[in-house]
Amino acid sequence: MKILVFTTLGKAERDQLKNGIKQNNEFFFKNDLTEDALIEILLEADVILGNLPIKHLSNPLPQLKFWQLDSAGFDQYQTIDLNIPVANMGTFYAQRCAETIVGGVIAFYRGIHTLIRLQVEKKWIGGKIRQEIQSISDKKIVILGAGAIALAAKEMLNGFGCTITLVARKNPNATIHSFNDLLKILPQTDAVINTLPGSAENYVNETFINAMKKGSIYANVGRGNTTDEGALISALTSGKIAGAILDVTEIEPLPSHSKLWDMDQVILTQHSGGGDENEVQGKVNHFIKNVNKFQSGQQPEDLIALKRGY
Amino acid sequence: MKILVFTTLGKAERDQLKNGIKQNNEFFFKNDLTEDALIEILLEADVILGNLPIKHLSNPLPQLKFWQLDSAGFDQYQTIDLNIPVANMGTFYAQRCAETIVGGVIAFYRGIHTLIRLQVEKKWIGGKIRQEIQSISDKKIVILGAGAIALAAKEMLNGFGCTITLVARKNPNATIHSFNDLLKILPQTDAVINTLPGSAENYVNETFINAMKKGSIYANVGRGNTTDEGALISALTSGKIAGAILDVTEIEPLPSHSKLWDMDQVILTQHSGGGDENEVQGKVNHFIKNVNKFQSGQQPEDLIALKRGY
Repeated sequence: MKILVFTTLGKAERDQLKNGIKQNNEFFFKNDLTEDALIEILLEADVILGNLPIKHLSNPLPQLKFWQLDSAGFDQYQTIDLNIPVANMGTFYAQRCAETIVGGVIAFYRGIHTLIRLQVEKKWIGGKIRQEIQSISDKKIVILGAGAIALAAKEMLNGFGCTITLVARKNPNATIHSFNDLLKILPQTDAVINTLPGSAENYVNETFINAMKKGSIYANVGRGNTTDEGALISALTSGKIAGAILDVTEIEPLPSHSKLWDMDQVILTQHSGGGDENEVQGKVNHFIKNVNKFQSGQQPEDLIALKRGY
Repeated sequence: MKILVFTTLGKAERDQLKNGIKQNNEFFFKNDLTEDALIEILLEADVILGNLPIKHLSNPLPQLKFWQLDSAGFDQYQTIDLNIPVANMGTFYAQRCAETIVGGVIAFYRGIHTLIRLQVEKKWIGGKIRQEIQSISDKKIVILGAGAIALAAKEMLNGFGCTITLVARKNPNATIHSFNDLLKILPQTDAVINTLPGSAENYVNETFINAMKKGSIYANVGRGNTTDEGALISALTSGKIAGAILDVTEIEPLPSHSKLWDMDQVILTQHSGGGDENEVQGKVNHFIKNVNKFQSGQQPEDLIALKRGY
């Protein structure tokens, strides 16, 4: 088979890829190809690794049998008509995204964001901060979404003893399935963790935020467009919402005039959620595993539904 | 029975205490007593709540049957000769201490300490930080101690998928029981979490630190005197140890000349580990539960061994 790779890989990672895939394949690396050569290979490629520019999707990909994205998000491809298996990197990124957002929530409750600011000022306040921080053990937490990030976050938070409720329209892992039912539990919820994809635009709207408990916190590791950021900033300003952990924002990079920069009660993680210093090797390993599955007739992991579905 | 309370309680918490204890008791609050009256009550008290000044322990406490400390630490009482049940607040503080130290470790791996500093400078670096942070999922973590904090930390870290080894001389919860066996696994250990009491003076000495893996991290929520701080600072300076999360230090408050203040790779949590904005009510609840157990003939929680043991 012909495998076309859009992910930028160094020599070591190309070798890792070639050596890891069991079947004999021909490999083509986008970075080595002229635009003309690329268009030719696109007509012949059996497998694609990586996020190819959307312009190439307007032409047919007659030989394509399996496409492995190298991101968790796939909003830009939602309207694409492709009736082959397409996989994202959901589970690979889910663990890391969950680590960041759960880490941010714990950091917030234990005052670590405040302690770092004190350290920058070389200021010891000791006992005073003990009376300003909270235990996570008795918190009631709602997670929006029931996909891989949500499940990983739930698993992590279980160890802290808090109560976790998942919300999703249809997913059986969730126990709340409608916005109306969600509005009923928000007034008793201490923290909301949003893991929603970009398709859930403006889900956390003014009605949602108004229903939240006074002094609760909001964490977003989904997509920035799922949240009415103006309403969130108002609620943070009034103290209705006591703090936020934002891995994503409406505009990224966050504009310098955004009020979020100045809020001590906000932890901005700069869309680093899925990050890992060993990310590329990790992705290559994940791709090897999935291509081996595909080529041996098994179902690849993390299949996603584009327009036509699979 | 006569119950003498050293913990400073407001009106609401005194009522909470009186209403919560099932048996009929007489209550005396140290804050209401003259020094002479206090000395008289000490001779008659059946139960003491709180950390009484050590000077009062040189006289006999002939009626005392149960003493509930209101701290987790009890180093100052180690040499006291008392042959009655004495309980500390181990499990109460353990959860909160574990939350802080585990929160600090996750914050470190996910770069939250760096992200807060960037936020203070209003600096978005986005993609760059993704390549500097690590996943917790594959980490090998050693916890020094196998008491309540260690067990709570283990429970929390389990949800992140890391491998955890407990170290204690005799405690059957631990799998490593000698310093020599510990030295053998340190070179393959990614993070050490210290939960040791002050009696383990200088346990984390130069030999210990030299045996640690290059690039590993060190977290201390035990006592400051358990660690050779000079050796730790040298290892942090050379990069041998990549980072530290310190809830305790040799001297507290940390002196302004300490190099630890200036280290970006260190998270100083200022001995806030056990903190909780609802701490006093939480303690009163814990005391009620334990006194009720004692007065109904059950064994109180968190019994500790002073000189004579119990």
